[in-house]
Amino acid sequence: MTIAVMGGDGIGPEVTAQAVKVLRHMLPNAELEWAPIGLAGIEARGKPLPDETLALAKRADAILLGSVGGSVRGLDEARLPRAERPGTGLLDLREALVLFANYRPAVLYPELIGASSLRPEVIEGLDLIILRELNGDAYFGEPRGITTTPSNERVGINTIRYTESEIERIAHAAFRCARGRRKKLCSVDKANVLEVMQLWREVVTRVGRDYPDVELSHLFIDAASMELVRKPTQFDVIVTGNMFGDILSDAAAMLTGSIGMLPSASLGHDHRGLYEPVHGTAPDIAGKDIANPLAAILSVAMMLRHSFGLEDRAAQVEAAARAVLAQGYRTADIQQPGCRLVGTREMGDAVLDAL
Amino acid sequence: MTIAVMGGDGIGPEVTAQAVKVLRHMLPNAELEWAPIGLAGIEARGKPLPDETLALAKRADAILLGSVGGSVRGLDEARLPRAERPGTGLLDLREALVLFANYRPAVLYPELIGASSLRPEVIEGLDLIILRELNGDAYFGEPRGITTTPSNERVGINTIRYTESEIERIAHAAFRCARGRRKKLCSVDKANVLEVMQLWREVVTRVGRDYPDVELSHLFIDAASMELVRKPTQFDVIVTGNMFGDILSDAAAMLTGSIGMLPSASLGHDHRGLYEPVHGTAPDIAGKDIANPLAAILSVAMMLRHSFGLEDRAAQVEAAARAVLAQGYRTADIQQPGCRLVGTREMGDAVLDAL
Ligand SMILES: CC(C)[C@H](C(=O)O)[C@@H](O)C(=O)O
Ligand SMILES: CC(C)[C@H](C(=O)O)[C@@H](O)C(=O)O
Repeated sequence: MTIAVMGGDGIGPEVTAQAVKVLRHMLPNAELEWAPIGLAGIEARGKPLPDETLALAKRADAILLGSVGGSVRGLDEARLPRAERPGTGLLDLREALVLFANYRPAVLYPELIGASSLRPEVIEGLDLIILRELNGDAYFGEPRGITTTPSNERVGINTIRYTESEIERIAHAAFRCARGRRKKLCSVDKANVLEVMQLWREVVTRVGRDYPDVELSHLFIDAASMELVRKPTQFDVIVTGNMFGDILSDAAAMLTGSIGMLPSASLGHDHRGLYEPVHGTAPDIAGKDIANPLAAILSVAMMLRHSFGLEDRAAQVEAAARAVLAQGYRTADIQQPGCRLVGTREMGDAVLDAL
Repeated sequence: MTIAVMGGDGIGPEVTAQAVKVLRHMLPNAELEWAPIGLAGIEARGKPLPDETLALAKRADAILLGSVGGSVRGLDEARLPRAERPGTGLLDLREALVLFANYRPAVLYPELIGASSLRPEVIEGLDLIILRELNGDAYFGEPRGITTTPSNERVGINTIRYTESEIERIAHAAFRCARGRRKKLCSVDKANVLEVMQLWREVVTRVGRDYPDVELSHLFIDAASMELVRKPTQFDVIVTGNMFGDILSDAAAMLTGSIGMLPSASLGHDHRGLYEPVHGTAPDIAGKDIANPLAAILSVAMMLRHSFGLEDRAAQVEAAARAVLAQGYRTADIQQPGCRLVGTREMGDAVLDAL
């Protein structure tokens, strides 16, 4: 097995380093190969997704990624052309490998209930997955760019775009996912305003006829973002487009108070996949050995399960992460009175010990 | 003065009826004219924005609106063509009157702190405004629709679009709004992915040079939706596009636990404006005399302030709403042990008594 390791930017490399220790322990014979992406790609090879990185990604059985993004030589990434933005490295990778299904679980760790900004009774037992479509929407739609109108003003354009088959494949993934869980699927759109979302709702509803055992509901995105705050435990699986999924999944992760704990998996048509923490680059704490490596480590568990079918070993890693929490180890983001405050490396070592 | 009253759909007419009682009391000489919109427009005149309704809106000094939306003759509105959807009535009205600035305050009423799903210490003192652009974005961008690809599959398309001048005018409104408050403005975009949002960030930054006393920051929409949950009191004024504003403002309103309490104002270039509750049609409780009319009543206060410059009378209405809360009156949505549960009408009467 070949596993590509792409630490990326900000806290990405340091949390990934801890996940790699766990990965080596669980898969001693796997071949690990490192490659730069994002800002690291730009700095090493002049591109957010260097050719060698893409070639490795295509060859690999799985990818362990940290996080990407940040200012480039002092310039706000938000001001750079698409080809020069760090985030483009990740977007191009998702597209090139046709990783269209992004699974983002938001799970409450009972030990961390005090870290949430929500009342305990509102989030107790929270266990939902946001399945975010990852290859379409305004992220990839053409035309895009900044042009000039006939009256000589600048105008910015992006295109929200979904084909029927793109919606079908993510809908099938969503129903299958719900089938393996509590059998409730909520599809989120804005079909009362956007035609592309009318197509979304129609296709999801049609695909649903193949899964009569799964209860399908629909919410508009504004209502969904309210319901997530009001009563998040009502959800099992939420499926939505790339843009709404970006927004909802971060909100859902934050609800748990454990955003430093949440892994994600981006999958395509076969067993290969990309695994990364839900959290971002957190540049303010990068390089200080204080970031929480558990999301990266739990991403290894998702990899063992989904790419290698090693359910037992995946469960071992998850049990080890819970064990260190139960032992009272805490990084700064989930600090609690009476617990033992540890750094990134020490937390990684604690998980290894528990294994 | 002519004031157009458009109750709309669901609980819209009943909450508007209570607001009208307050409006008559505060402005006894105003001429009120009723007109149907949304589903009510379709049922009365075959169109979500009937010609007579639009003509009245153009003539009126202000519009008091309830809410619009709902299934049409048993058909999910999300499946109808644009011209037949109830929501289109409201969208066309916003566009025809050039109401480009939608002010959505999210304020915590201390009496209702227990109604929020957030911990009291996280929302104590919450007082923010989301300023949502209301005339652009994917809501209005062309091309839009469902077409067929060369390979004969259907594809849905909507266009996110902002011109420089559209961004300038909302940015000026946002800086002026922040200037009258705590002088902090956060602009929310997705400039790391979307070119249209790069233009947004650039123009907002440039306009900001005219307001050196206002502190400007930028957040990506995914980070903003996390920060709203994590630490909502960090915000004063948030300015964002039509789509992100739809999502963020509903989430922010729900954070307060008082969504039945929150009014909004949609303004354009002059004193005229449209005033409506932040909440929706709530069809499940429509016609039962249980909906909370306070958001509609507080919309009257916003109207008195912004369209008629009657700050004193606006403050009187707001004080009356707070007084009935302090007296223990509660509709079902904000019910609390030991308080007096009242219906829509009784709550309206209580406010009138307090006035
Ligand atoms: C870095 C950025 C391009 C990316 C996205 O918007 O998809 C990130 O926010 C994510 O959610 O993985
Ligand atoms: C009814 C609908 C078209 C509308 C919108 O999306 O703007 C509503 O959700 C709102 O926020 O006022």
